Amino acid sequence: MNTPLDQLRNELQEVNHKLLALLNDRARISHEIGLVKEKQGVPKFDPIREKEMLEHLIANNQGPFDNSTIKHLFKEIFKASLGVQEKEHKRTLLVSRKQHESNTVIPLKGNTIVGNGSPIMVAGPCSVESMEQLRTVAAALKAAGVTVMRGGAFKPRTSPYDFQGLGIDGLRMLKEVGDEFGLSIISEIVHPAHMEIAAETIDVIQIGARNMQNFELLKAAGEARIPVLLKRGLAATLDEFIHAAEYILYHGNSQVMLIERGIRTYETSTRNTLDISAVPLLKQETHLPVLVDVTHSTGRKDIFLPCAKAALAAGADGIMVEVHPDPQTALSDANQQLDIPQFNDFWSGLLGSGLFNR
Amino acid sequence: MNTPLDQLRNELQEVNHKLLALLNDRARISHEIGLVKEKQGVPKFDPIREKEMLEHLIANNQGPFDNSTIKHLFKEIFKASLGVQEKEHKRTLLVSRKQHESNTVIPLKGNTIVGNGSPIMVAGPCSVESMEQLRTVAAALKAAGVTVMRGGAFKPRTSPYDFQGLGIDGLRMLKEVGDEFGLSIISEIVHPAHMEIAAETIDVIQIGARNMQNFELLKAAGEARIPVLLKRGLAATLDEFIHAAEYILYHGNSQVMLIERGIRTYETSTRNTLDISAVPLLKQETHLPVLVDVTHSTGRKDIFLPCAKAALAAGADGIMVEVHPDPQTALSDANQQLDIPQFNDFWSGLLGSGLFNR
Amino acid sequence: MNTPLDQLRNELQEVNHKLLALLNDRARISHEIGLVKEKQGVPKFDPIREKEMLEHLIANNQGPFDNSTIKHLFKEIFKASLGVQEKEHKRTLLVSRKQHESNTVIPLKGNTIVGNGSPIMVAGPCSVESMEQLRTVAAALKAAGVTVMRGGAFKPRTSPYDFQGLGIDGLRMLKEVGDEFGLSIISEIVHPAHMEIAAETIDVIQIGARNMQNFELLKAAGEARIPVLLKRGLAATLDEFIHAAEYILYHGNSQVMLIERGIRTYETSTRNTLDISAVPLLKQETHLPVLVDVTHSTGRKDIFLPCAKAALAAGADGIMVEVHPDPQTALSDANQQLDIPQFNDFWSGLLGSGLFNR
Amino acid sequence: MNTPLDQLRNELQEVNHKLLALLNDRARISHEIGLVKEKQGVPKFDPIREKEMLEHLIANNQGPFDNSTIKHLFKEIFKASLGVQEKEHKRTLLVSRKQHESNTVIPLKGNTIVGNGSPIMVAGPCSVESMEQLRTVAAALKAAGVTVMRGGAFKPRTSPYDFQGLGIDGLRMLKEVGDEFGLSIISEIVHPAHMEIAAETIDVIQIGARNMQNFELLKAAGEARIPVLLKRGLAATLDEFIHAAEYILYHGNSQVMLIERGIRTYETSTRNTLDISAVPLLKQETHLPVLVDVTHSTGRKDIFLPCAKAALAAGADGIMVEVHPDPQTALSDANQQLDIPQFNDFWSGLLGSGLFNR
Repeated sequence: MNTPLDQLRNELQEVNHKLLALLNDRARISHEIGLVKEKQGVPKFDPIREKEMLEHLIANNQGPFDNSTIKHLFKEIFKASLGVQEKEHKRTLLVSRKQHESNTVIPLKGNTIVGNGSPIMVAGPCSVESMEQLRTVAAALKAAGVTVMRGGAFKPRTSPYDFQGLGIDGLRMLKEVGDEFGLSIISEIVHPAHMEIAAETIDVIQIGARNMQNFELLKAAGEARIPVLLKRGLAATLDEFIHAAEYILYHGNSQVMLIERGIRTYETSTRNTLDISAVPLLKQETHLPVLVDVTHSTGRKDIFLPCAKAALAAGADGIMVEVHPDPQTALSDANQQLDIPQFNDFWSGLLGSGLFNR
Repeated sequence: MNTPLDQLRNELQEVNHKLLALLNDRARISHEIGLVKEKQGVPKFDPIREKEMLEHLIANNQGPFDNSTIKHLFKEIFKASLGVQEKEHKRTLLVSRKQHESNTVIPLKGNTIVGNGSPIMVAGPCSVESMEQLRTVAAALKAAGVTVMRGGAFKPRTSPYDFQGLGIDGLRMLKEVGDEFGLSIISEIVHPAHMEIAAETIDVIQIGARNMQNFELLKAAGEARIPVLLKRGLAATLDEFIHAAEYILYHGNSQVMLIERGIRTYETSTRNTLDISAVPLLKQETHLPVLVDVTHSTGRKDIFLPCAKAALAAGADGIMVEVHPDPQTALSDANQQLDIPQFNDFWSGLLGSGLFNR
Repeated sequence: MNTPLDQLRNELQEVNHKLLALLNDRARISHEIGLVKEKQGVPKFDPIREKEMLEHLIANNQGPFDNSTIKHLFKEIFKASLGVQEKEHKRTLLVSRKQHESNTVIPLKGNTIVGNGSPIMVAGPCSVESMEQLRTVAAALKAAGVTVMRGGAFKPRTSPYDFQGLGIDGLRMLKEVGDEFGLSIISEIVHPAHMEIAAETIDVIQIGARNMQNFELLKAAGEARIPVLLKRGLAATLDEFIHAAEYILYHGNSQVMLIERGIRTYETSTRNTLDISAVPLLKQETHLPVLVDVTHSTGRKDIFLPCAKAALAAGADGIMVEVHPDPQTALSDANQQLDIPQFNDFWSGLLGSGLFNR
Repeated sequence: MNTPLDQLRNELQEVNHKLLALLNDRARISHEIGLVKEKQGVPKFDPIREKEMLEHLIANNQGPFDNSTIKHLFKEIFKASLGVQEKEHKRTLLVSRKQHESNTVIPLKGNTIVGNGSPIMVAGPCSVESMEQLRTVAAALKAAGVTVMRGGAFKPRTSPYDFQGLGIDGLRMLKEVGDEFGLSIISEIVHPAHMEIAAETIDVIQIGARNMQNFELLKAAGEARIPVLLKRGLAATLDEFIHAAEYILYHGNSQVMLIERGIRTYETSTRNTLDISAVPLLKQETHLPVLVDVTHSTGRKDIFLPCAKAALAAGADGIMVEVHPDPQTALSDANQQLDIPQFNDFWSGLLGSGLFNR
């Protein structure tokens, strides 16, 4: 039996199918317009024409949809059509997993490879202070089987009166220790002009959180010949983080690792809030290795171990942690650096969890 | 002359107009279906049917739009059609200025009216402590020409070991002082069962920030016979704030005032961050009076005056500030209460700015 | 040889030891004053006297310390002395691990125990909709070996026009299904007056995020005879969360579980930001079981599994997740509920990780 | 009569005064040690020695203060003593009002002065697009009596595929228009190497929000010969903002203006949250002019006017707003730029408020 409701539903279905056909007609025409514009070298998005079309439609609208609904629906249709126009030529992001399905892997010194499923540990002092300090840490790392060391030569500091790092001398000291102990070296670079010296002295350029949207530095890192470790900004969205990485790839360097280091929130019991969901989301959206810095995200030694475990369980490709022979006397960030016995405990806790050797 | 581009554009325009006609056809059918359903007492939104329609359309989609685009566009169309279905009966928010264009005005004791364009000042101690304390403040307010006093009888405190207020005794003390000095009294109520006693003792029920989404309390306030001052939650969006007010109106009480009291952010130099843009946005979206609590938003006496001026310049209908005869010995929130001479300075600074008598 | 520096250092050491002796003398006297006051029933903290003492000291200060430094140092000394005064009687928090070193364990139906080192899974629909819906989920949980089901009977919703839940009928339906399938039932209670009916129908009272600082509800939950699952507020600090739990223990109920459910931040790629560091911090500070709600913290099915793994690796005592037979047609929160096959995948992924059976 | 309490209080007072004398003795010795170290060129803060002193004191502590209290109190004392050591030579911040009580005033073209009590208006397009665009805006500004124009030549954009600005050509176009209409020009500089060309073409260098902690850029701006407008970072604390300005002064440029442009919070109804309390706090803490960017702080044209009024009422030295001849077709940030009639309304609303001519 055919109720009035059934009849109305049939009518609705018919209209739906006519709409479907028309929408696809529209997409086809729109695509052809795109091809013509492309030949003419004219941008495909033409906001003035869109405005005119909308005005025309609204002038002819007899309801029952009101004008704002019509405007909204056609804007959606225009946007979708534009997507078709640009589909073939569209620059999907270079960092996107849709562009490049397999994981980017980054080989470092020796047999260390980042992003191949076996997580890495990056450890070392906040700042480079002396050869003795570096050698003490390097020896401890080597003894523990850790192959990547970090150390800050250029220190971006809130106050101009704080210790700003040893600069190029620091890079040279890192190189010497890296060579001596066979460790790969990661160090932050803060000036576009220093990419050359970085490539000569260290193995991985770190771009710090405060410089995540220093696009001139990102462009320079894109032209560098060594891998880049990009830190998430203090309050960067994942979308901004991904696009910052895109700058580096777009300028020629595909050896990029991402590192979550906590975001700025209202919570004060930790230095920042470790955004653990960033790990699976970045792994899903991009093909780049994703690390987690437990030092800056939490700022609390007492929870480095459970947070590092969480990071690995969430799929992180590595952990970064600060280690100093004598944190009490460190020139920067004393409270959140592990001393060497603490690091050894942390490291064996992590190895013991089974999460490090997935 | 007719270029190929012109021709394509003409085709596009034709398709646009066919789409327009079809969309409006669809809206008409959808509206009729709604009327049938209404007679049958069946809900108009039928997600299962929507799902079927989408599946059917996708099964018939031949591109160039891909399935996800078709799904997206039809979901937008369905949503818009539903809007037509419900348009006549749709409950636009009661708080909305679209529903009720003129300002809600709330008469208090004497000639005081909230929301009529002339801002009010609400001052008084954080907590009710003694009759002497209340009388000292009330006398100072009366001398200054201020007609509304606040005082906390029920104090929602983070810790169960902190002073929780004098409760119903406190309300009675407030009533006595309000009567004696001819002041309207605002005090926070925290339990749905206390609305009755509130209506007998005070003039305005305050719903505190921590209870902004305590919907049982909002419903009870909706049934109360006296005006309500609703504080924005610690981290409430404006949308949530507006809907919390809607609960009170929906349950029968249209005498509602809103008060911005700062939101929780990463910034620590102020207790909270005064969201000044909330003032014009709430005035624009709703017809309710909007006040600003400079005490809790900033937590800093040294900037109460410029922030109160900013609030008035942005269109606020009133200012709330904490005043205590001896803040140093206050049982709660000592650091952010003005003493009486400080209040008099604040008040004359505000009067002198010309912003109070717009 | 004794350099001038050595000599000065010796002097300094001498002064240090005199200060040490004097500080302890002061603590002793202060303690005795406390005992006298206690006998007299007078509060120990006397801000007016402190102020007088400070003024007196400043009047006698001859430098080189400036007055503000002297004020600061003596305030610290006063505070420390007060600590001594109150030490014996001080109410350390009942939730604190310092008070109660061993883990609180909470037995539920059958052999399920929360907090004994073996994590639990809590799953079920956002809202109770029908017996059929509940039975479908319950059967799936039982088949998977899951023993605790959640379901919302009272739904605190942003808008008064949204589905508010089936209320007491919903509780009764939950009881029936819980009895039938041998599952423990968790459901949210929003009104202090409903604790009695909760104790008769369900196994665990949930206090929702919006009510975390609804202290009247916390007090009522403290008087309830069944365990309580307390959700962290939308933007609550850990300190506030811990104190909210303290209200429940202080009012008599020691069977409290905490649940992290994401905090409100600027990031929009997830519904909230899962604060993973809250897990180890809450385990460290309190003796209560700590769960993680992956549904509300992320709002994204596509990362439930890695986030649940991270929670367990960080030490969580359980995971909560929303499951619905047909999320598309659910009356609330459709996008973030797993359907049953998705839940089975999630569950086997978690079991397969080895993290569930530590 | 002398009660036991009185007697104890007298004892306490005596101890207080002995402590006062000893603390000042300690400060004196500490100061002398500082002088010796200064001669030797040794850093005054010696954490290892502090640690030894603390250990020694704790080894000798016989209570009733427990070791952690003793440690805490002595750390406070050490810190205070260090303050005395460094007092004479201490670098108080150059930006601090304590260093420089009177307002910094910054003269621009013609008679425009920033920071002298009479607020300025800065308006112009987000991006420089064409001479015609610039001339249209410049003519409108000139007609309105506005003397400062902004326009972006270098555009730091989230995506490398977005329009990055006309670069140095854009600066030259700005110069030409500035000269033609007698307007001072503000434009953002993003690379340290561009300070020279900036000084030749524009009147004020803007450092953008994303570069607030790009310290290499700040140092370069410190060496520039023209004034700098420093924007607050997306999620910068006021302390970080103040120290970023300090970098510029420290490197030689005292002509610095600060501009609040909204901070990143959870609220989504505005683009950012305008932190109005930043205005009085920055005016209080520093001697620099403080402006407010209503465009980026709110992102909503509909509340530019009340927010600009609020900024002026709070004490701002100027307002910045984006104006474009045709915002719909603008190459960037279309939704938040005023067109020229809208700007004229905004401007006359502001003039009419009386807040502009304080």
